Amino acid sequence: MFKNLPATVSINEVGPRDGLQNVKTFIPTEDKIAIIEGLIAAGINSFELTSFVSPKAIPQLADAADVCRTILAKYGDRINASALVPNLKGAQAAWDAGIREVACVISVSAAHNKANINRTHDESIADLAKMIESLPGMRIRVDLATAFACPFDGWVGPEAVRSLASRIHQLGVRKIVLADTIGVATPDRVYALSSYMRSQFPEVEFALHLHDTRGMGLTNTLAGLMAGITTFETSIAGLGGCPFAPGAAGNTATEDAVNMLQDMNIGTGISREKLIDVLSLVAEKVDAPVNSHLAKAKLYECLN
Amino acid sequence: MFKNLPATVSINEVGPRDGLQNVKTFIPTEDKIAIIEGLIAAGINSFELTSFVSPKAIPQLADAADVCRTILAKYGDRINASALVPNLKGAQAAWDAGIREVACVISVSAAHNKANINRTHDESIADLAKMIESLPGMRIRVDLATAFACPFDGWVGPEAVRSLASRIHQLGVRKIVLADTIGVATPDRVYALSSYMRSQFPEVEFALHLHDTRGMGLTNTLAGLMAGITTFETSIAGLGGCPFAPGAAGNTATEDAVNMLQDMNIGTGISREKLIDVLSLVAEKVDAPVNSHLAKAKLYECLN
Repeated sequence: MFKNLPATVSINEVGPRDGLQNVKTFIPTEDKIAIIEGLIAAGINSFELTSFVSPKAIPQLADAADVCRTILAKYGDRINASALVPNLKGAQAAWDAGIREVACVISVSAAHNKANINRTHDESIADLAKMIESLPGMRIRVDLATAFACPFDGWVGPEAVRSLASRIHQLGVRKIVLADTIGVATPDRVYALSSYMRSQFPEVEFALHLHDTRGMGLTNTLAGLMAGITTFETSIAGLGGCPFAPGAAGNTATEDAVNMLQDMNIGTGISREKLIDVLSLVAEKVDAPVNSHLAKAKLYECLN
Repeated sequence: MFKNLPATVSINEVGPRDGLQNVKTFIPTEDKIAIIEGLIAAGINSFELTSFVSPKAIPQLADAADVCRTILAKYGDRINASALVPNLKGAQAAWDAGIREVACVISVSAAHNKANINRTHDESIADLAKMIESLPGMRIRVDLATAFACPFDGWVGPEAVRSLASRIHQLGVRKIVLADTIGVATPDRVYALSSYMRSQFPEVEFALHLHDTRGMGLTNTLAGLMAGITTFETSIAGLGGCPFAPGAAGNTATEDAVNMLQDMNIGTGISREKLIDVLSLVAEKVDAPVNSHLAKAKLYECLN
């Protein structure tokens, strides 16, 4: 056995936001809710439910408030529900819909921050400070995009990540996501950056958000586990991508991650079999390919 | 960085045998040779070139002797060429075609050994002894199939692997492949079995043969590296499977493995870019899907 792997891991399901935002055909609100309810029934208790962005920018998520209100009314006491927001206006809309944790994205690569959200680092930090000041009751998580590499500038070094994280930390943020936005991280880099960041910011809870572009989603998950990371963002059916990162494929599939963790006897509280059941609902309702390995190979059935 | 990872790794390309044996449409011998030559041009210097089996059982590999003779005549001094053989007759045919290393398959699971090659363990060991006695100049490698799990009997324990390996070792075999035939191994099991076997048989060279059924091919490769394994069997385009293991997907793709190793600064002597070039030849000549991640995402291009 590997030494020092965590006994349990938290999965933050980002499919309803990161997965669906790229799907062109509008998915009726009740179908989105049915998928989320299926995932809750499978044992998932932490979600990025949606994004409070301009409906013009992402029409698919125009029903953000409805999704949040419906889910929170039924499951608010059982799940940790967050939403992505691009700015204070979005955060206020999220608050009004009952959301008490939001995720803000800042890219470590200045070029990607500009391409993705049209902000310099200084502008992003100023936006963040304003949000924290305006919504004192809101928990704020920061997703550090391109924490490993940028599609425009190549490899990103740990020092750049630490430097930006330090400014975010000074504002009081205690949840930071290290995101391999385009899916080019390697396990040595994931291990090194995760270990380094945990040592530099011991009071911060770090999570990993790993795209599976080059087939290393699970490999990098393992590297993160070895570095002591216990929260991973994954997406049902491997849905997802990044509109401003050409060639980036979907997220690591939730069912693939749960499958690996379960067979390593690392607890997630999630049923692999029930996740597989949700896949047929996703295939029926979402106009996007199901990208997981487990969807194709149900080979856990022969194992005890 | 991870500690103690090897600086270099050997890739044994099994696509021409394990990959092609499942392809129904016959691939002309000159096309097989062109693919192998492309792989040699990309830097691959170790191959399982074919299998000397009955042409009735696997018509695709009826040209085994021609493939070997042609490749050995041109590249015999530059590559390590082996072939799979089911019995002494096959090994003699391989010898006649110039092959000096053969791979014999024995499944750790008795049920799978029976289903795959219709042999008990005692019969397999007797066959092996006879082959060693009859062909003293031939190097013999044993592939231990279902070293992690069996599609019929579930998880296989390390003790069963050690026990069978011990009988093989007593016959003088010094190259043993631990094969995850159906692709259900997990990194903790790969690490544990690889470490255990290396400690039990320090003079044996162990290799890993990892199928990618559940997306853990690269994860398990990493686990093997951490356990000190430096030889991995992979297949161009992820070709492969197992006819007697329902649901098993292809091998770990050579290009995915090389891609990961290269970006981890672990030397293979193989060019990722030239492997990508071979993929178009494979797609054109082989009636099977190209199953690698790298084929879809050429995202190494932004990295330096």
